[in-house]
Amino acid sequence: MPSYKAPIENVRFILNEVFDVSEIAKLPGYEDATPDVIDAVLEGMAQFCEEVIQPLNLSGDAEGCKYENGVVRTPKGFKEAYDQYVAGGWMGVTSNPAYGGQGLPHTVGSVLEEFVTSANMSFGMYPGLSTGAIRAIEHWAPEHLKQTYLHKMVAGTWSGTMCLTEAHCGTDLGLIRTKASAADSDGSHKITGSKIFISAGEQDLTENIIHLVLAKLPDAPPGVKGISLFIVPKFLPKEDGSVGPRNGVMCGSIEHKMGIKASATCVMNFDEAKGWLIGEPHKGMRAMFTMMNAARFGVAMQGLGIAEVSYQNAVAYAKDRIQGRALTGAKEKDKPADPIIVHPDVRKNLLTMKAFTEAARALSVWVGMQLDVIEKHPDPKVRQEADDLLALMTPILKAYFSDMGSEVANLGVQIYGGHGYIHEWGMEQFVRDARIAQIYEGANGIQALDLVGRKLPQNMGRPLRRFFHPASQFIEAEMENPALAEFMPHFAKAFGKLQQATAIIAQKGMSNPDEAAAASTDYLRMFALVAMAFMWLKMVKVAVAKLPDANGRASFYDGKIKTARFFFQKMLPETETRFRTIMAGSKSLMDLDMEQF
Amino acid sequence: MPSYKAPIENVRFILNEVFDVSEIAKLPGYEDATPDVIDAVLEGMAQFCEEVIQPLNLSGDAEGCKYENGVVRTPKGFKEAYDQYVAGGWMGVTSNPAYGGQGLPHTVGSVLEEFVTSANMSFGMYPGLSTGAIRAIEHWAPEHLKQTYLHKMVAGTWSGTMCLTEAHCGTDLGLIRTKASAADSDGSHKITGSKIFISAGEQDLTENIIHLVLAKLPDAPPGVKGISLFIVPKFLPKEDGSVGPRNGVMCGSIEHKMGIKASATCVMNFDEAKGWLIGEPHKGMRAMFTMMNAARFGVAMQGLGIAEVSYQNAVAYAKDRIQGRALTGAKEKDKPADPIIVHPDVRKNLLTMKAFTEAARALSVWVGMQLDVIEKHPDPKVRQEADDLLALMTPILKAYFSDMGSEVANLGVQIYGGHGYIHEWGMEQFVRDARIAQIYEGANGIQALDLVGRKLPQNMGRPLRRFFHPASQFIEAEMENPALAEFMPHFAKAFGKLQQATAIIAQKGMSNPDEAAAASTDYLRMFALVAMAFMWLKMVKVAVAKLPDANGRASFYDGKIKTARFFFQKMLPETETRFRTIMAGSKSLMDLDMEQF
Repeated sequence: MPSYKAPIENVRFILNEVFDVSEIAKLPGYEDATPDVIDAVLEGMAQFCEEVIQPLNLSGDAEGCKYENGVVRTPKGFKEAYDQYVAGGWMGVTSNPAYGGQGLPHTVGSVLEEFVTSANMSFGMYPGLSTGAIRAIEHWAPEHLKQTYLHKMVAGTWSGTMCLTEAHCGTDLGLIRTKASAADSDGSHKITGSKIFISAGEQDLTENIIHLVLAKLPDAPPGVKGISLFIVPKFLPKEDGSVGPRNGVMCGSIEHKMGIKASATCVMNFDEAKGWLIGEPHKGMRAMFTMMNAARFGVAMQGLGIAEVSYQNAVAYAKDRIQGRALTGAKEKDKPADPIIVHPDVRKNLLTMKAFTEAARALSVWVGMQLDVIEKHPDPKVRQEADDLLALMTPILKAYFSDMGSEVANLGVQIYGGHGYIHEWGMEQFVRDARIAQIYEGANGIQALDLVGRKLPQNMGRPLRRFFHPASQFIEAEMENPALAEFMPHFAKAFGKLQQATAIIAQKGMSNPDEAAAASTDYLRMFALVAMAFMWLKMVKVAVAKLPDANGRASFYDGKIKTARFFFQKMLPETETRFRTIMAGSKSLMDLDMEQF
Repeated sequence: MPSYKAPIENVRFILNEVFDVSEIAKLPGYEDATPDVIDAVLEGMAQFCEEVIQPLNLSGDAEGCKYENGVVRTPKGFKEAYDQYVAGGWMGVTSNPAYGGQGLPHTVGSVLEEFVTSANMSFGMYPGLSTGAIRAIEHWAPEHLKQTYLHKMVAGTWSGTMCLTEAHCGTDLGLIRTKASAADSDGSHKITGSKIFISAGEQDLTENIIHLVLAKLPDAPPGVKGISLFIVPKFLPKEDGSVGPRNGVMCGSIEHKMGIKASATCVMNFDEAKGWLIGEPHKGMRAMFTMMNAARFGVAMQGLGIAEVSYQNAVAYAKDRIQGRALTGAKEKDKPADPIIVHPDVRKNLLTMKAFTEAARALSVWVGMQLDVIEKHPDPKVRQEADDLLALMTPILKAYFSDMGSEVANLGVQIYGGHGYIHEWGMEQFVRDARIAQIYEGANGIQALDLVGRKLPQNMGRPLRRFFHPASQFIEAEMENPALAEFMPHFAKAFGKLQQATAIIAQKGMSNPDEAAAASTDYLRMFALVAMAFMWLKMVKVAVAKLPDANGRASFYDGKIKTARFFFQKMLPETETRFRTIMAGSKSLMDLDMEQF
């Protein structure tokens, strides 16, 4: 069975040395988020993940969720673990203190999301979905609904879901058929229709489940401009806040999935269920995007979380498994064979995992900090800039991290050889669990379209500048820094190619949108690699500065520099190919007739 | 549930137009393999695969194999399907007529392996393992053992296995602990030990199971030079050829695997089981490689087979699923949305699948033909050349095809979106089934080492010339061919880089073997891409020539040219990055200390 140790030393390095989380703590409302408090939260969550939910991961996968007559049973131990999660106050870590939350920065919250996924991705789905729902209700619901729902949801005794997809539409929500009646005298609407792929739509963990449901009002214009968002509780709350009669919503079945089997994926049937409008009529998509952006960032963290745990176990196995001899002569002569970590190709796989995971964590903290700036910074210009960077980077993180989560998990299986393919060793579960992250919350192809079609042109390229400016400035400031000499020319070159690709996509895409779309996935990947290189440079700069007086930590800093070297020599060159395939344009894709496929 | 139609038109194109299978039919012993016969065999197998085993694929995965007290039960329908397979004479298609086989060329046999995998990879494991065992027995066993076993095995009423791996050793077989006693008076040995990961080690399909087992004789030298190969039947054959008393071999349990769940993967315990030596004492590895090379080629065909079926279903879904609108304006205005195949990125995924599958089939036929030349050609020089090409290309096909099988299956899931993640749709099963092909019969990292460490230096680079010569000759002959003008410079450039990489690896690897090993996986992939480009050029050449008089087939040939264009513009450029990362050398991999991982 795999093991997991939360990577606290690496997290501290990113939060405190590469970035400065104490800057976030200076924002109004975050005064309590001192380094001590953050440290205690990290350690508390690490312990919960390592001791409570990680031991349930493999058994949860084997057992899965069970469905009978509308009732869903989560695997053995999940209810108890969830109760501990609630008792520890973990549900409300980043939520508004007005509703009982601890109001800690999202920067910290996203690190916790990584830990939870590493330990038990399926378990993490339950609080994860609630977080999105809480955010949407807080943002869009009228005060009386907030008062009714948020305290319970922040406490974790009630949970939340997002009900978007229907059997015939996922990406294209304009096609939804779920209907909402005109408002009744009490202000509620009757919701009727069927939703699929609803994570945590039904479960046995919480006393109530609060669904956020997209539906069409009677006077709705066609398409996405006619969608409204409703709050539909499983049980109707009574005046005193306790749970009242059952509402007209039932789980019809659960899916048999490739992975995250301990997370219930439900068909939810609404039959004249009472619902309350949140946000404006027909403007539900806007409200839904409040959830969606947070959810996309959360999915990125899932990719990182799976990569981290897969890496940890792959390293342990590679050091432990003896098989064959080093090509340059036996390394451990007293043993019948050497550990497989002596082999260059095994190291290449391990370093790919490590180089991704560490830079991705840095990138996620940089982007995650923007969430806090957006919410708390007094200066609207600074808030706008943070919002722009977040908008730009969200599709990149969602797609690249989830693609790499799968890639890294597969490398982990490969290092285990035949044992990697066997359930009991746990490595193949990471592959199956990770796979969904490339699909849900907007498949990765959609993320790439969002990047080239929406984020690049947005406000005349304003979001783009939030990455291009700091990258340019870094090049200008550090180009002659001898400590970075081996890296900077490669970074400048890759960044130059990214700028060139950006200009060409913008130009060609104007006359033919298929040109931008044809380039989109290659462009997103290229962008991500340049952003990762940027993070490695930031880490190297710190490591070089600290190394002379590092004493016991010298190996740690030295390891960062060596891993950066690997990234620049073995991973960044992928940008060359991506640039070439972007330049090749859309013609070879669009030329085939339907019947030639 | 997925569907499958054997790609007979594409197979005929490769067998008859791109290559000339009638040349193989001219080899002594293949006189009966006329185009008509081959066509009938292809169509018969297509029908069996489409109608008998494909419908059992999804249910076989859901049900899996069951183990109880040493007995293994295959999923519902497998026994009946296997009986039909035997009744149809399919087991013996390529086997020696002296033992009841049909003696058809291996070129045809490998196409059939593709079909079987597409329809039901798990099912294919049962006859697949037998094929390897038959080959090894025919090659190495003394005549009386051949007479005892081969007729039954070729008929399919008895099956075969390969028992190599033990819990503590897979790649490094020198570490095995299974023991063989000195020969008893009847010439048999007592075999004692435990083997794991034995595919088809126990099942309910055949009346006897013939294990080929690696074990160490009492006087064995240490390491791989002390391993002998034994034939160990589950039931000891009686004089009359019928099944006699149970031998001391038992299945101890079966594995719970990520995929190929309908294929029983067994722990096999040998307790003083009677076994007979085949091949020379202590030279079992050589005999084992007779099976292994065929098995590796078979694994390559599995990668292709999964890619083909995944592609077929992805295309069907992309044409059927309506969602959103084409970016350049609605394509099907009468429908609420356009099919997703209008989108450039969906087409890019489909074309990646298609461009791989079609060129891989061509490459497999080219390499597969060498198997027939090796066995039947009267000229030893020609046989040697065929053997060299096969030796060179086997690790490339095994690793690249199986890597791409997984990659393509994952693209198939992605095209289905959320439905791709659900068992009932069948696409995620392809991912899980395909994954093992990257691991077994030598993990792909081992294939890459075999390529750079063994095949490149072998006989002063002689095997290498069997690819480099025809590629050079093609460039010389076709460089000025206007019909290939858009492709040839790119091919020449990529081939030039491959030659350059080869020279540098050979040179650097001489002084430091870690240098060759560090480059190995990138080099294998680069080699594979160049070989695929070579196949596309051969196909384009035929298509261009036939197009003017093609009439009803014009779209078919035109589709080949367009797909080649996609390959050259979007897939071949990967060689650039691979060249760069090869050149970066081993230092960034080897520099990290153990504790820095």
